[in-house]
Amino acid sequence: MDSDQTPAAHSSRPEIGIGMVGSGFMGRSHALAYRSVGGLFDLPVTPRCLLLADMDMPSAERAARALGFERATGDWQALIDDPAVGLVDITAPNKLHAPIALAAIAAGKPVYCEKPLAPDAAQAFAMVEAAEAAGIITMVGFNYLKNPIITLARDIITGGEIGEVVSFRGIHAEDYMADPSAPHSWRTDPGSGGGVLADLGSHIVSLARYLMGPIDRVQGRMNTVTRNRPTHPGSAETRTVEVDDHTIALATFANGAQGTIEASWLAAGRTMQLAFEITGTRGSIAFTQERMNELKLYVIGQKRGRRGFTTITAGPEHDPYGAFCPAPGHQLGFNDMKTIEVRDLMMALAGTPDGGRAAWPDFREAWRIQCVIDSIAASSATGAWTSVESDGL
Amino acid sequence: MDSDQTPAAHSSRPEIGIGMVGSGFMGRSHALAYRSVGGLFDLPVTPRCLLLADMDMPSAERAARALGFERATGDWQALIDDPAVGLVDITAPNKLHAPIALAAIAAGKPVYCEKPLAPDAAQAFAMVEAAEAAGIITMVGFNYLKNPIITLARDIITGGEIGEVVSFRGIHAEDYMADPSAPHSWRTDPGSGGGVLADLGSHIVSLARYLMGPIDRVQGRMNTVTRNRPTHPGSAETRTVEVDDHTIALATFANGAQGTIEASWLAAGRTMQLAFEITGTRGSIAFTQERMNELKLYVIGQKRGRRGFTTITAGPEHDPYGAFCPAPGHQLGFNDMKTIEVRDLMMALAGTPDGGRAAWPDFREAWRIQCVIDSIAASSATGAWTSVESDGL
Amino acid sequence: MDSDQTPAAHSSRPEIGIGMVGSGFMGRSHALAYRSVGGLFDLPVTPRCLLLADMDMPSAERAARALGFERATGDWQALIDDPAVGLVDITAPNKLHAPIALAAIAAGKPVYCEKPLAPDAAQAFAMVEAAEAAGIITMVGFNYLKNPIITLARDIITGGEIGEVVSFRGIHAEDYMADPSAPHSWRTDPGSGGGVLADLGSHIVSLARYLMGPIDRVQGRMNTVTRNRPTHPGSAETRTVEVDDHTIALATFANGAQGTIEASWLAAGRTMQLAFEITGTRGSIAFTQERMNELKLYVIGQKRGRRGFTTITAGPEHDPYGAFCPAPGHQLGFNDMKTIEVRDLMMALAGTPDGGRAAWPDFREAWRIQCVIDSIAASSATGAWTSVESDGL
Amino acid sequence: MDSDQTPAAHSSRPEIGIGMVGSGFMGRSHALAYRSVGGLFDLPVTPRCLLLADMDMPSAERAARALGFERATGDWQALIDDPAVGLVDITAPNKLHAPIALAAIAAGKPVYCEKPLAPDAAQAFAMVEAAEAAGIITMVGFNYLKNPIITLARDIITGGEIGEVVSFRGIHAEDYMADPSAPHSWRTDPGSGGGVLADLGSHIVSLARYLMGPIDRVQGRMNTVTRNRPTHPGSAETRTVEVDDHTIALATFANGAQGTIEASWLAAGRTMQLAFEITGTRGSIAFTQERMNELKLYVIGQKRGRRGFTTITAGPEHDPYGAFCPAPGHQLGFNDMKTIEVRDLMMALAGTPDGGRAAWPDFREAWRIQCVIDSIAASSATGAWTSVESDGL
Repeated sequence: MDSDQTPAAHSSRPEIGIGMVGSGFMGRSHALAYRSVGGLFDLPVTPRCLLLADMDMPSAERAARALGFERATGDWQALIDDPAVGLVDITAPNKLHAPIALAAIAAGKPVYCEKPLAPDAAQAFAMVEAAEAAGIITMVGFNYLKNPIITLARDIITGGEIGEVVSFRGIHAEDYMADPSAPHSWRTDPGSGGGVLADLGSHIVSLARYLMGPIDRVQGRMNTVTRNRPTHPGSAETRTVEVDDHTIALATFANGAQGTIEASWLAAGRTMQLAFEITGTRGSIAFTQERMNELKLYVIGQKRGRRGFTTITAGPEHDPYGAFCPAPGHQLGFNDMKTIEVRDLMMALAGTPDGGRAAWPDFREAWRIQCVIDSIAASSATGAWTSVESDGL
Repeated sequence: MDSDQTPAAHSSRPEIGIGMVGSGFMGRSHALAYRSVGGLFDLPVTPRCLLLADMDMPSAERAARALGFERATGDWQALIDDPAVGLVDITAPNKLHAPIALAAIAAGKPVYCEKPLAPDAAQAFAMVEAAEAAGIITMVGFNYLKNPIITLARDIITGGEIGEVVSFRGIHAEDYMADPSAPHSWRTDPGSGGGVLADLGSHIVSLARYLMGPIDRVQGRMNTVTRNRPTHPGSAETRTVEVDDHTIALATFANGAQGTIEASWLAAGRTMQLAFEITGTRGSIAFTQERMNELKLYVIGQKRGRRGFTTITAGPEHDPYGAFCPAPGHQLGFNDMKTIEVRDLMMALAGTPDGGRAAWPDFREAWRIQCVIDSIAASSATGAWTSVESDGL
Repeated sequence: MDSDQTPAAHSSRPEIGIGMVGSGFMGRSHALAYRSVGGLFDLPVTPRCLLLADMDMPSAERAARALGFERATGDWQALIDDPAVGLVDITAPNKLHAPIALAAIAAGKPVYCEKPLAPDAAQAFAMVEAAEAAGIITMVGFNYLKNPIITLARDIITGGEIGEVVSFRGIHAEDYMADPSAPHSWRTDPGSGGGVLADLGSHIVSLARYLMGPIDRVQGRMNTVTRNRPTHPGSAETRTVEVDDHTIALATFANGAQGTIEASWLAAGRTMQLAFEITGTRGSIAFTQERMNELKLYVIGQKRGRRGFTTITAGPEHDPYGAFCPAPGHQLGFNDMKTIEVRDLMMALAGTPDGGRAAWPDFREAWRIQCVIDSIAASSATGAWTSVESDGL
Repeated sequence: MDSDQTPAAHSSRPEIGIGMVGSGFMGRSHALAYRSVGGLFDLPVTPRCLLLADMDMPSAERAARALGFERATGDWQALIDDPAVGLVDITAPNKLHAPIALAAIAAGKPVYCEKPLAPDAAQAFAMVEAAEAAGIITMVGFNYLKNPIITLARDIITGGEIGEVVSFRGIHAEDYMADPSAPHSWRTDPGSGGGVLADLGSHIVSLARYLMGPIDRVQGRMNTVTRNRPTHPGSAETRTVEVDDHTIALATFANGAQGTIEASWLAAGRTMQLAFEITGTRGSIAFTQERMNELKLYVIGQKRGRRGFTTITAGPEHDPYGAFCPAPGHQLGFNDMKTIEVRDLMMALAGTPDGGRAAWPDFREAWRIQCVIDSIAASSATGAWTSVESDGL
């Protein structure tokens, strides 16, 4: 080494060993976030992609190589038990979320879990209680909550810029199950958090709660349009579908507002219609994830003849966009939201909560979201308005 | 006159004497349509703006002059009785719709009535029965149904281009009552078809029925956000508001689809959000009256890598756009829809129904729309799903 | 007549007898405007559709009937000579604009002429001189200048809201000649104001002058993409095309700004891309006729984190929208702009110029627009920057 | 380590030591790309962030820590000479691009250089010759060329889907210098590749060449709107601005098409209007980087009444979107394009060019882009059409 060069990046910061279970869509996105996060944010801890568990060793080895993890295992319990693992990250199939999380909690390790926590609120609540009793830091991956434009939307609401909110319209519609020949999978397994309300509806419910606050009562209707699907890809044999393709609901909020919630996975042509419009007594905001870097804002009192919605584009004024790019309008993408999620988690693990947002949404919040889901499902079954049985916050 | 000139436009076509009651927003639009329609369409009858009735003679004379009517009267019964009046056109305040229409029917005269027919379905049904018993041609002004782009939407659906329809999302949101200091008026008078569900909701219900067919059951919720309003413009005295500001509903359709319906008159920043999105098993359509000359269409089976919604812009291929303009993309406006409405009415009066669409929507259709409105209101009161009590077609 | 009815609409206002030559796209639109204008605006004179001239008597009679004119003639000179004709309206083929207009001027009659005045600026200037020498009121139909949203754009600029304007980007692109099998017609006749620069380019030049002021110098390039077209519809025989399909130009403005101008009639998929974006030292505006009721406005100095373009939608705050509809957001269409044009003309004829806008654009303005067109053509031929030889105002 | 765990990610793949000079906007983005690329793509080589050079050691150490480089140096020549450095990455100020690149070439090392290569084409060409003589792999960072939607645009054109291209309209407009109090910097230094044509215009020229092919002749006009700027931030002293704020140009392409090119850095309200519209004889495409995941496509021959532009949203069908996300519509961001750029570079370094796209755009392409820039500047000075003096490919 030349005399005018010095080692510079030997970070003295503590590392946290990541043990990730699963390697699908979300596993890949998590791995990417761990890689990126330290280059974007000045974090007190450094995530280290240590150990990846998958259903068997060959799969795990393949995945570890692809995603840049140091070691692999075919046994998730071994991952939890590994002393070098400081965070258990669960991106495994939905069915395994609860058992893995409970085991991690039992081992006293922080848990980062993809949604849903569990197929129903009761099981989710057991996880909340276990985590809270053990004083474990938990976080659940709801992706879209971390978009700086969504933070802006919340700031606008909580700052009173649009007055008191009075209405909400929320939608999450995609079309990945629009084809009737799309076969059964975990998506159609009621015991696996299957059905569109659980799969996509949970995202719009998470946004509703984040922006509008607690939901009091719901009245929903679930519909199964494709009544039979192939048992396996390409199979001629079919089996009855027991989950919903399209669900709609009315909702009342603790703040007195009311609104609609809709989830569909057969919305032909829609690939990311996660959208809402919120009206307050002094203005409105409108958003669609299809244009995730834009928020439309209207505030009353504009000059005569110059009134209209303003289209705000994300830029460094909307934290933490500036960590990704110093210039406005250059746009974040899907994976960037996941990186912000991991940033928040790292801050929480280091004990430096960032404005109360660290380790949020946690298991308790995920359970509350699940309570809304369950209540919509219950109201669909009874045909009656149903109270959301969570502690209401 | 020069020898090489000849009288040409002495139409030998019969005239129909228009007797119009009322001269507000809609009266003005009707008058304009009567003026325009003959220049756009080759009609078998010619409307003649004969007699205008308003609340008193001075008002009527002023309005007749402004709107181009030949004579004026302060007495609507006299208008009905005038033998030269061949069509009674009711754009008077909502409260008068029923009595005037019934009197016109009693006099055996065709009726063109602005919506709503009556404050409730029962009174509306009495009007239907009277009109049908007397064999009277009736038409109700729902404006937006006559947009060529809406006709296109219906053609797409009925032609099976998007398969079987499975979901509907419908909204009519404006902001003309968003200001809490907006005073009481007929808009807030329950006996006058007041409230946003009746005022704006009826438009989206009319579109829902036109595009999706009969509505079976509804579950709605009406909310009054501004609980007190000034008794009069500028008044410090206020009175309780008894009608809804914002109403949401779930609905099931006879064809098995389900959807949401929303009406708001406090949607700050929205001036014409009359919008819907309809999904079928093979595609989707999306529309907003904010861009009334465009329809978005997605049909499955597009070429790989080239998939997406197509934005169709109205043109001569979409009848009767071509009557207004031979070139595509030049755009129709609000009043043009009203002119098409009057065209349809004139065709019906001349006994030449145009593809079954003439004299539609008639009193029976307006009553059915009112039944949906009433059922949403009833379900809001009881909190229970409510069947729509019309004959279902 | 009943005692409580009185004749009301016997307008004591003077009538002006319209003599219209031509009955195509624009003739139809003019006729509609004459019908409508009195129902929308309180005019000091009433246009009366008196006499229609077409190429022969049968055509003229047919057209008069269709468009609601009282009499017909196959001889436009007879129309001019008719003492009852008080306004000569020229919607005839382009070639006839100059001779008819000059004859009308010679007869001392006001002229309303569709653009272009003449195939070149020299002939147009002869018309200006004749009209001004005779003290004749003239008006030329440039359609899009009368959109209330365009008036708003101009108000924003002249009011200094976006500072001093520094750049202009203007386009008029459609696709009606995109098909190489579209045959020769007046559109491809150099002696008839043919070619896309003259046909569509004149519209964007008219907007450029209206919004930006005089154009000093231009450097253009005209291109003929389809070099041969069928001599007649369906003909296998072709003939060389001598006019431009696509023209682009740089321009400098008297105010120091610079910009681009583009015209195309082979822009596949575009039916009304008449669009501009104007930047000033303190803001920007953007418009496309595809959404003719919207203007996008950005003004510097907005609140941090809330910056963005505001989409203003036409409403009663934008005169004369309110004459068409008392509610914002309901939208005007193409023909409504033509009605405003006729309103302005009627005001001018009655000697009550409305804010200086009456009888504008007149022949002199149309000539100046033609000077820009001619200069772009000249610069395309020489390859050199070319001064626009008009008096610069 | 547990017996059922095995080391998995010990990649046997060769590493390439990255030596990066500079740590600003682009340095940060490069560093992020090196971190991410291996988690997204299965690369034959692994970039290792080895050595970062900045203007002095403290800056370099700070930057190395922030961006995750192992070592730091205040001397870029030492970086080039370091035997562990296998790629010299230049994100330093523009003025240093040429000297550093030439030194790296002299040392026989591949170069990855941000644009512009040099302040003019002559200097750039010297770099091309040096690199080609030495057989050095080079790549220049033009960012936007790597968007999968841009690849789609090119595939559509080269596949003949829109026929032969006939027109191009290209713009890159932002507003970062709109404020007249924005001070002098490298951006306004003529010797540093300053001025908007060089800074932003080069991006739209790079797209024009990529999509349309070689540019033959240009006629441009450069304008300096803000004639004096503060010498330093906040300074009251000002100095004359010698570079352009807004430049427009006409261009002809080797394929016979013509078009316009515009660059502005004072387009108030625009933060990323990098946009184009391309028309061919059988269709059109339109794009704006403001909605970087969307391409609008129109192809003639659509069904009557169903014609319109289709909005295609990026998804796994558009390589390499799928590496980032398996689901369509989830969106890439700005940094993701840079990661694709680094992917292409790594493939080229490993000797596995990916479909000819590896190590592209190289120095030669960057020089050709510079030739267009220089020709526009020359034509602005002379006022005459100017041939683009490159070898035309």
